[in-house]
Amino acid sequence: MSSIPKIVILGAGYGGVLTSLRLQKELNYNEADVTLVNKHDYHYITTHLHMPAAGTDNPENARVNISKLIDEFKIDFVKSTVVQIRPQDRKVILEDGTLSYDYLVIGLGGEPETFGIPGLLENAMNIRSINSVRLIREHIEYQFARFKREPHRTDYLTFVVGGAGFTGIEFIGELSDRIPELCKQFDVDPSLVKIYNIEAAPTALPGFDPELVEYAMEVLRKKGVTFRIGTAIKECTPDGVIVGDGEEIRSQTVIWTGGIRGNRLIEEAGFETMRGRVKVDEFMRAPGHENIYILGDNSLVFNPEGRPYPPTAQIAMQAGVNCAHNLVASIRNQPLKGFAYSNKGTVASLGKGEAIGIAFGKKYKGRVAAWLKKAIDLRYLFIIGGIPLVLRKGKFL
Amino acid sequence: MSSIPKIVILGAGYGGVLTSLRLQKELNYNEADVTLVNKHDYHYITTHLHMPAAGTDNPENARVNISKLIDEFKIDFVKSTVVQIRPQDRKVILEDGTLSYDYLVIGLGGEPETFGIPGLLENAMNIRSINSVRLIREHIEYQFARFKREPHRTDYLTFVVGGAGFTGIEFIGELSDRIPELCKQFDVDPSLVKIYNIEAAPTALPGFDPELVEYAMEVLRKKGVTFRIGTAIKECTPDGVIVGDGEEIRSQTVIWTGGIRGNRLIEEAGFETMRGRVKVDEFMRAPGHENIYILGDNSLVFNPEGRPYPPTAQIAMQAGVNCAHNLVASIRNQPLKGFAYSNKGTVASLGKGEAIGIAFGKKYKGRVAAWLKKAIDLRYLFIIGGIPLVLRKGKFL
Repeated sequence: MSSIPKIVILGAGYGGVLTSLRLQKELNYNEADVTLVNKHDYHYITTHLHMPAAGTDNPENARVNISKLIDEFKIDFVKSTVVQIRPQDRKVILEDGTLSYDYLVIGLGGEPETFGIPGLLENAMNIRSINSVRLIREHIEYQFARFKREPHRTDYLTFVVGGAGFTGIEFIGELSDRIPELCKQFDVDPSLVKIYNIEAAPTALPGFDPELVEYAMEVLRKKGVTFRIGTAIKECTPDGVIVGDGEEIRSQTVIWTGGIRGNRLIEEAGFETMRGRVKVDEFMRAPGHENIYILGDNSLVFNPEGRPYPPTAQIAMQAGVNCAHNLVASIRNQPLKGFAYSNKGTVASLGKGEAIGIAFGKKYKGRVAAWLKKAIDLRYLFIIGGIPLVLRKGKFL
Repeated sequence: MSSIPKIVILGAGYGGVLTSLRLQKELNYNEADVTLVNKHDYHYITTHLHMPAAGTDNPENARVNISKLIDEFKIDFVKSTVVQIRPQDRKVILEDGTLSYDYLVIGLGGEPETFGIPGLLENAMNIRSINSVRLIREHIEYQFARFKREPHRTDYLTFVVGGAGFTGIEFIGELSDRIPELCKQFDVDPSLVKIYNIEAAPTALPGFDPELVEYAMEVLRKKGVTFRIGTAIKECTPDGVIVGDGEEIRSQTVIWTGGIRGNRLIEEAGFETMRGRVKVDEFMRAPGHENIYILGDNSLVFNPEGRPYPPTAQIAMQAGVNCAHNLVASIRNQPLKGFAYSNKGTVASLGKGEAIGIAFGKKYKGRVAAWLKKAIDLRYLFIIGGIPLVLRKGKFL
């Protein structure tokens, strides 16, 4: 039996990668045995996935091999899928093995929240992984090719994006840039293409500055997007969506970006959840489990006013840094540090050269906001992989 | 009423384009009124379509705008689809109009011959136009993307090519080059991909030199192709094909290259046909119609031994040249010239750097044959569009 504490990190998303990188830096030799588990041997940059999904960038620019990020002399990497978490046994069951732990970090990412809308799970696609965005990209191109062979099928050229949150808005920004290229490539009359953005909430980008939201919608409307705000999707079928008062929008392509809930593994492990998420303590630990940290989409973190923060890359990264600090502190029997989220600003891209954002307490839009977005993306690459990664993956910016 | 004879050319394939180009050169000012009718405003290089179908070349390299080929001061161009040919009225009915003629040249191209195999028309794709090959290309890529989301569906990675004639063999040559690229792009284990080439005849490339056929099959086998020669497709379903003794090959991608028959418009016009083709007279005219020439896939031309020549690009081009000569001769009341096919050689590509062929009475294989193929393709570009076209479209060679 080893007396070195064993830390297992599930998921190489924003939270898991930042925890790993910080542990790698802060832990001394033989102070802990750290294992990172991930389904793929790469990390993907979720906030960049809207581009390869629309086909405006190569999916390769949205992923980084884990071997390029972590030092395998310091952290073990296991490529596997988590099947079950057993807090009572301090074990994690993998598809092809078992890992026991002293400390567990859960950064597994969420699942699409369909709010019980019938057919959404079966008939809509999601922007959530390299594989899913490659599917969306190929699916969209395929519809253009199919239309040329069956020119009466205008539903091949109708694209429905459910949800006008960040992912939905950023995706339609790219899609509306991509459509003219596809029309040219496939000899399709651009006036036949329809892009709908459907949102049940009374506004796009709920919670964002209303002036910037109006600006964003105007930019996207000019690119041909039809907004249906305050309109719920009632059902998604193989032929399209039924909205509001029963109107059918016929479409072969429905992309659902309307919500994320916690991973079902969290509930199955017996943690108490709200929409699949765990209301973590001030140190980001699961209540009643001093050795289990939960980061990212699976945790609920409240702001000082008592409202939950939206689960963003930014908060997951900060949580990862805090988690690594507390793991080291625990091992060294030092006091833990409470998590305090510091909002560095938020920028949403609207396609090439257009964005909106709030940073340093100021509003930005247009080209300046687009530059800010690039700076944020480059900063992330720098944080996780330093200059070499910026040079390798930063070309798309 | 004009006293100038009116020539209408239906179809801008090999036969129609060569007829047009020669008429443009040989006719004097006001000697005839020539109209070329085509469904698209571009000519496509049918013998090159196997590359964009597999995705090894851009479809743009397989088409040429008709405006770049014909001189619109000399020849009128009408972009429309032929609906009916009425020899008794000397009229052609178009989707959006009517054309009357004194001389008619039919170069409309053929249709896939399915030999009555159930489900082939509905479930298989064909390599026959820019739109159809763009569909095939996108369809293939889409299967890789779908597989990554449903990894138990190995039928997404099974590709069935029906027919081992020239088109089938050239296509699988390209496809087997493309598969490793797609596997890399989509992180797919290449050993999961299957390519079947199914041919009912007792040999691949029937009528071709057996030694070269064996060489071709060996090259393709090494690239991962499984041949099922002497095996008939009994049925094509949405799930794949049923072959020979009832065996099912599950596949989401069936490409049928097994045969071409004449265009249904020919039969509907009242011409006597054999498998949709008209046994033309020595001048390539429809029997009983001194003013109607039929070229390419819709004509049956017999060799001196009484066997029909296969309908190739080469024969269609020579027929076009002969036809233009005879049209000019008719107008000038000069004697017509009988058509005599001169086989300049035949080369089949097998993918990058590999081909087989017979030319100048000699057999060629490997890199030399691949060069010959390129030379033939460049020669064609030169014939129809001169040096400018060679420079513009010849890059792929």
